[in-house]
Amino acid sequence: MALRNALLVSIAGLSLGAHADEGMWMPSQLPEIAAQLKAAGFKGDPKDLADLTKPPMSAVVSLGGCTASFVSPQGLVVTNHHCAYGAIQLNSTPDNNLMANGFNAATREQEVSAGPAARVLVTESFDRITDRILEGARGKTGRDYYDAVDAASKAAVAECEQDAGYRCSVANMYYGTDFYLVKQLELKDIRLVYAPPEAIGNYGDEIDNFMWPRHSGDFAFYRAYVGKDGKPAPFSADNVPYKPRAFLEVSTDPVAEGDFAMLAGYPGRTYRHRSAAEFADQVQVALPGRIDLYGALIDTVEGAAKGDAEAGVRYASQLAGLKNNLKRAQGELDGLRRSDAVGVKARDEAAMLSWLDAQPDAAGSRADIDAAGAVIAQSHATRERDTLFATMRSQTQLLKSALQLQRLAAERGKPDAQRERGYQQRDEALIEASLKQVQRRYSPAVEKAVLGELLSRYYKLPADQRIAEVDAVFGGDIAQAKAALDTLYTGTTLGDEAERLRLLAAAPADVSASTDPLMQAAAKLLPAELRIEDADKTQEGELLRLRPAYMRALVGYRESQGQAVYPDANSTLRVSYGKVSSLDPRDGVHYTPLTTVQGIVEKHTGEAPFDAPKPLRDAIAKGDFGSTADPALGTQTVNLMTNLDTTGGNSGSPVMDANGRLIGLNFDSNWEAVSASWMYDPRYKRAIHVDVRYLRWLLAKVYPAPQLLQEMRLPAE
Amino acid sequence: MALRNALLVSIAGLSLGAHADEGMWMPSQLPEIAAQLKAAGFKGDPKDLADLTKPPMSAVVSLGGCTASFVSPQGLVVTNHHCAYGAIQLNSTPDNNLMANGFNAATREQEVSAGPAARVLVTESFDRITDRILEGARGKTGRDYYDAVDAASKAAVAECEQDAGYRCSVANMYYGTDFYLVKQLELKDIRLVYAPPEAIGNYGDEIDNFMWPRHSGDFAFYRAYVGKDGKPAPFSADNVPYKPRAFLEVSTDPVAEGDFAMLAGYPGRTYRHRSAAEFADQVQVALPGRIDLYGALIDTVEGAAKGDAEAGVRYASQLAGLKNNLKRAQGELDGLRRSDAVGVKARDEAAMLSWLDAQPDAAGSRADIDAAGAVIAQSHATRERDTLFATMRSQTQLLKSALQLQRLAAERGKPDAQRERGYQQRDEALIEASLKQVQRRYSPAVEKAVLGELLSRYYKLPADQRIAEVDAVFGGDIAQAKAALDTLYTGTTLGDEAERLRLLAAAPADVSASTDPLMQAAAKLLPAELRIEDADKTQEGELLRLRPAYMRALVGYRESQGQAVYPDANSTLRVSYGKVSSLDPRDGVHYTPLTTVQGIVEKHTGEAPFDAPKPLRDAIAKGDFGSTADPALGTQTVNLMTNLDTTGGNSGSPVMDANGRLIGLNFDSNWEAVSASWMYDPRYKRAIHVDVRYLRWLLAKVYPAPQLLQEMRLPAE
Repeated sequence: MALRNALLVSIAGLSLGAHADEGMWMPSQLPEIAAQLKAAGFKGDPKDLADLTKPPMSAVVSLGGCTASFVSPQGLVVTNHHCAYGAIQLNSTPDNNLMANGFNAATREQEVSAGPAARVLVTESFDRITDRILEGARGKTGRDYYDAVDAASKAAVAECEQDAGYRCSVANMYYGTDFYLVKQLELKDIRLVYAPPEAIGNYGDEIDNFMWPRHSGDFAFYRAYVGKDGKPAPFSADNVPYKPRAFLEVSTDPVAEGDFAMLAGYPGRTYRHRSAAEFADQVQVALPGRIDLYGALIDTVEGAAKGDAEAGVRYASQLAGLKNNLKRAQGELDGLRRSDAVGVKARDEAAMLSWLDAQPDAAGSRADIDAAGAVIAQSHATRERDTLFATMRSQTQLLKSALQLQRLAAERGKPDAQRERGYQQRDEALIEASLKQVQRRYSPAVEKAVLGELLSRYYKLPADQRIAEVDAVFGGDIAQAKAALDTLYTGTTLGDEAERLRLLAAAPADVSASTDPLMQAAAKLLPAELRIEDADKTQEGELLRLRPAYMRALVGYRESQGQAVYPDANSTLRVSYGKVSSLDPRDGVHYTPLTTVQGIVEKHTGEAPFDAPKPLRDAIAKGDFGSTADPALGTQTVNLMTNLDTTGGNSGSPVMDANGRLIGLNFDSNWEAVSASWMYDPRYKRAIHVDVRYLRWLLAKVYPAPQLLQEMRLPAE
Repeated sequence: MALRNALLVSIAGLSLGAHADEGMWMPSQLPEIAAQLKAAGFKGDPKDLADLTKPPMSAVVSLGGCTASFVSPQGLVVTNHHCAYGAIQLNSTPDNNLMANGFNAATREQEVSAGPAARVLVTESFDRITDRILEGARGKTGRDYYDAVDAASKAAVAECEQDAGYRCSVANMYYGTDFYLVKQLELKDIRLVYAPPEAIGNYGDEIDNFMWPRHSGDFAFYRAYVGKDGKPAPFSADNVPYKPRAFLEVSTDPVAEGDFAMLAGYPGRTYRHRSAAEFADQVQVALPGRIDLYGALIDTVEGAAKGDAEAGVRYASQLAGLKNNLKRAQGELDGLRRSDAVGVKARDEAAMLSWLDAQPDAAGSRADIDAAGAVIAQSHATRERDTLFATMRSQTQLLKSALQLQRLAAERGKPDAQRERGYQQRDEALIEASLKQVQRRYSPAVEKAVLGELLSRYYKLPADQRIAEVDAVFGGDIAQAKAALDTLYTGTTLGDEAERLRLLAAAPADVSASTDPLMQAAAKLLPAELRIEDADKTQEGELLRLRPAYMRALVGYRESQGQAVYPDANSTLRVSYGKVSSLDPRDGVHYTPLTTVQGIVEKHTGEAPFDAPKPLRDAIAKGDFGSTADPALGTQTVNLMTNLDTTGGNSGSPVMDANGRLIGLNFDSNWEAVSASWMYDPRYKRAIHVDVRYLRWLLAKVYPAPQLLQEMRLPAE
């Protein structure tokens, strides 16, 4: 109870930049924070963590969207079941459903391809090239600044990719302050080695998603193969296992609350270093607005589909997406309010600016900071309108198809490299797939209702926000718009798949000459789309130019307090450290940091998603846990909770102990931490992992894979 | 975690009669178990607890359905808000809504009547009269045994009630083994003194019902008045406060996990000493059958009311009742399964019977025990049919009205004292009210659908279970029944309130001569109702005669193990003792035993039932908790959890510390303990109380009532 009291008291004193366990550090920063890393309990040399060619960091890889790690010298890779789901699905047949049954290749020969798109990316270098990227941009502003950075980045990537077998990218750190060239070995022959049944790998599914206590065996094994020459190569039966520079040793020690833990991975996106004004906007305007819009769209779709069973089925997925977005937005808003993120950030920024004003070269920085604030305010001024316009495309099927077809026709007039992203040759297959999908996801009544709702909101905007092209197509008020929608959807033949595919294949001139009313409407709307896109890039360019002043001030201010600053997440390799942690999610409730197989039995209903397979239930009932049992609990653990700093993209990240040995696989966060993309609140930020002892037990006793245990040099039971 | 492990291990060893904290003891038993009571931490003399005329037991009173206690020498009574809800509602007007605003009588004159039906019952004596009750029954069997017990009980009650101002009853202990005459002083002028707003007294309402963590201020104060002569009297402005023999002192000490706690009250009904066969039947047949039937009726009502908004409204309350019953039955079933109640009871009974067989006089007892088992089995054989028949009445409106009218007409032919309970003169107002209510709760389509569902189940019963009268009215199969229902409901005029009330007022002969088709159907069904009632009483008589052998064997067996046996609850005064206890409801989750005002803020949404009043929120924000704050938590507690043994009827029960001082008011149980009416599982059985410090704080700082604090000799803040 003393702990609880301490936590309650700490609410008032919550501040930024002061939490020992917050941070998604670039590996190169770790020597800088060596003292705090050692104080937290890390037993290795922090310098080793900075070297991407050495263990353990060289064992941590990206799957593109997920993280994974090598766990044997023979290219064995462990990641989440949900990260390998596509590969599992791909290899499933009605007779051999790997999703339902799991997969266990007894020999190398039985390993199956994860598909031609599967990748394992090994980051080999990470070099600061700020000067090269900004050289041509300096002195420029707005769109010109944006284009200069874009061109320099593309050139650096092209040069780097001259080295065959590598994929390169430029990462923007601290919002335009620094740029790094990331060079990754691109392994292309990836094979599925082992996966538990979905009823284990995704036990609890959507119901348990974001929830603790958790009981999921969310893991799977891949193996990376290369050509006989050791170089990356597409799938071939002749290929041989890739020999990584390093692999992680799997721990055989118990884990308990308070133990040091660290994690490496590729977190996607955070907003921790946004300005106080952006925090306030997010809580006071952006999220409430998003919640209002999602709520209205849900009501609209449900209302329009009511009594029409077929429409209900066709919009089920779109509705589920809207509801999920609504739930997340509400969770983020609740969390940010609970943490008083606006107040905490405002106080921190005010202190930082006071500090800045006392510095010799403050004036120029303040000018940039204020200018950045003005650009942001300007973008917020038209945000509601821009969102409504973008939503007319994103939440429709037929109008979206028409806009896609017109845009593609326009882009096809340019050399491929100059086409807008999403409309290059390599994107056309995706466009075709999306044009085909329309058939299963569209009902004219619902689409008209959605557009009616969006347009009725549009007509309530101030007059100076009107988009001439929208008015030209839909008229000047909602009554005219409804009539226009009736005319458009009665007259269009885009509901016919053959017609859409004909237009996809047609010459650009034929597309623009189409007399289909919806195609003509899209042609009229296209200039507005392009104009808004250009304004976005202009603003983006200005912010690339101006935000670094804010970031430099923040870094300087923290430095003056003896603290380092990690950059916001951007899908590059990062390291977090912290400890195995319980959670007090609300008054009267305490969550322990380890769950056990008892919870699987408690949740089991016999129906998905709580349909624990019989072999698992039998093994639990038998209670034969061998060396994988937790000595303190006297039973088998399943999942593990830490306070590690994570976000989307950290799925599959290896969780390591103080000696860098694998103790868990990250796979989710808790509901109370949905707002952590903006603010790390030490009271509520937790990460959820598979306890590697559960993985070991499943491999030893439930769906045995002695060959894998042997390969990882683990006890057979 | 060591504790958790110990609990997991204890599952296998769970047994009955061995838990220190289980038991609803008759006060007279407490000297018998003095050693264990002292060992648990009780600091008073257990003998004092046995004397109903001494404190603290003389301070504990019944409200009829709820429990309460005197807390001042001036007749001040504290109970639950939900127990005083009728009185609060009665005194509410559109201009002065006491439910919403609460009530606080600054002076005696401002106290308002709780209504003519409100009672405070002070148990003054509790005397064993077994011989007197059984004298005329001995040698008899079945219905004769039942009637003899009934007649002797009525005579004892009538004699006892010669003493004006008393209400008497005969309590059957240990299933017919013993009978006690309970004599209660019946105070009739009860006034409302204080109630918090509903948003405090019922914070969380249905959503939080059965749930922990809880944050409800479920308390209210009454005052009992008597005539100037000190005798019970109906309300009169001249009446004076009743001076109780004793009152409870309110504790000003902190409370913490593990502290001794005890509770006194009037628990309604438990089934702990039912036989192993009855346990098995409850889990394997009765509860699954009830769940199936409730589920089918819910589907039927929802299906029939679909698309008919008016029917939806009319059946909302009936549906809510069915869903609540379904939820409780499912909770009870889940709990009994989780506790392996069937296995635990079977092993215990087997051990008891082995012990019994080794006793000198075993044969006669075994014969009775086996005979009781046969009677129970026999009643189970026709249970499904009897349930369906009873449900045709309980879940309908028009058919029920017709049956009520016909039955009342039949009963009116007898002297009032010989009429069946529910049909005596004093019941007629209730029957009239129920006949009026029909209007707001009836739709012919839904009632026909409900009867159709029940009859379709009836026709699937074995042929020998058919009821001739049902076949005569509804025909021999479901097709005939549907036609019959159409005819009955097209032809009846009972849907007209005036017609129902006319029949209520009509002479018996006119009622039986009614040509209304539904009245004629009821007249035909009435003999079946009477026959089943008679069979029930015959079985009840046999069980009254035979069950004592089982109970005596159980008491003897426990005695041989050094344990006492408390009787199953029967709405008489009982005492439980145990301790302030946390709960591990499921893997990974730990509930602390004290909640705090922080939880009120966390749950507050601004909308009922989580609409904490502004004065409360302001006071929490201010953090001025004075002497009522918990020193360890550093904040104000709200609710309190113990492992005390309770059931329905214990609402309002005083929770006392080791010195008999009031530390809480019982108001609910946890969801995991729904099955406790059959089995006390120490892992899951908890009781939920208002922490008296929250009550004190509300009276001191939020809705101040300094006069009450002074009257209870409590600090002003």
